[in-house]
Amino acid sequence: MLLCDIGNTTYHFFDEKKSYKEDAKFFNPLLINERVFYICVNAEVKERIKPLENWVDLSLYVDRKKYYDTMGIDRIMACEAIANGVVVDVGSAITVDRVREGVFEGGFIYAGVRAMQSCYKNISVALEYSFNFELDLDKMPKNSRDAISYGYLKPFCAEVLSYGMPIYLTGGDAKLFERFFADAVVDDTLLFKGMKNIMKKANLC
Amino acid sequence: MLLCDIGNTTYHFFDEKKSYKEDAKFFNPLLINERVFYICVNAEVKERIKPLENWVDLSLYVDRKKYYDTMGIDRIMACEAIANGVVVDVGSAITVDRVREGVFEGGFIYAGVRAMQSCYKNISVALEYSFNFELDLDKMPKNSRDAISYGYLKPFCAEVLSYGMPIYLTGGDAKLFERFFADAVVDDTLLFKGMKNIMKKANLC
Repeated sequence: MLLCDIGNTTYHFFDEKKSYKEDAKFFNPLLINERVFYICVNAEVKERIKPLENWVDLSLYVDRKKYYDTMGIDRIMACEAIANGVVVDVGSAITVDRVREGVFEGGFIYAGVRAMQSCYKNISVALEYSFNFELDLDKMPKNSRDAISYGYLKPFCAEVLSYGMPIYLTGGDAKLFERFFADAVVDDTLLFKGMKNIMKKANLC
Repeated sequence: MLLCDIGNTTYHFFDEKKSYKEDAKFFNPLLINERVFYICVNAEVKERIKPLENWVDLSLYVDRKKYYDTMGIDRIMACEAIANGVVVDVGSAITVDRVREGVFEGGFIYAGVRAMQSCYKNISVALEYSFNFELDLDKMPKNSRDAISYGYLKPFCAEVLSYGMPIYLTGGDAKLFERFFADAVVDDTLLFKGMKNIMKKANLC
């Protein structure tokens, strides 16, 4: 049994023991014969795997009423992985979602690291820096690189910490934020845990 | 006597009674015969007005040691306008600078409204929204537009409010943020006040 989280650029597989990625453009889903329980935010791939009987779309088993209409299925699955806490999924965007006693309380979307660096660069070439992730967030900055790093990191981190809830860090750039959330659980496979919880509820495993 | 703040796109004039703008590309500085005390962040215009005797560069009269090397002269002038407080200058970028008893404590740079809307759009067309400035920042969002609006506005506003200092809002988009800073002074001419303070110190007026 395989789990798969299909994003815009990759198929992210998880087989209980390990997780690995395949390129969304070049990977052929017909190559897999066993059952794959998947979620997919990639419209093109979605069409491609729909006719394949061994590929099971887990989004059909989610209680959508708990969430909002345009909420990404990846965010929903991460929320399904926890009972209490904040999920911080650090990818091209950063999504922050709050769950209390199994109930989704709402969430927000922040810019990912690369997107925000481009954003500053597009405002002015004078703001073209890579962020300083070693920054002391308790000190007001006195140079340009730290001024944009602080602007990106401090308000965001303070917001997440202000909830006073357990923090679950996931996504490709999660490690960059680990330093700012001392007690956070860093879990690359959080989303797959949510998928398994959905499967259990739906008696699919 | 005229004051002028020259940015990348405009000459912003102030003559004690009113302020008005001229296009940085097309305005001819030779047309002005009276003395103009100016600051300028526009490299091209800077070269053009350097030879003009009636144009006085106020940046030469600033005590630069109080600030940091790459800090924009417009930010410095806004800081010179106040003795205690936070200057929030909302333009293509948002600069936030803290001054306590006349001493610059540091500052940070955040993305301006248009830059940040483009940033979200560049991450995904699903995030292409104009921000909701009517948003209730005390509620976690449950729709996509509010999720990006909250991500942009809430952490930023909370950071500025956390200083517990008087807030001075200035810049072209200042009005958009007025609602979130109930006690803020909104002042389009803050920077000119800083310029006049520098002139007084230097006995230029």
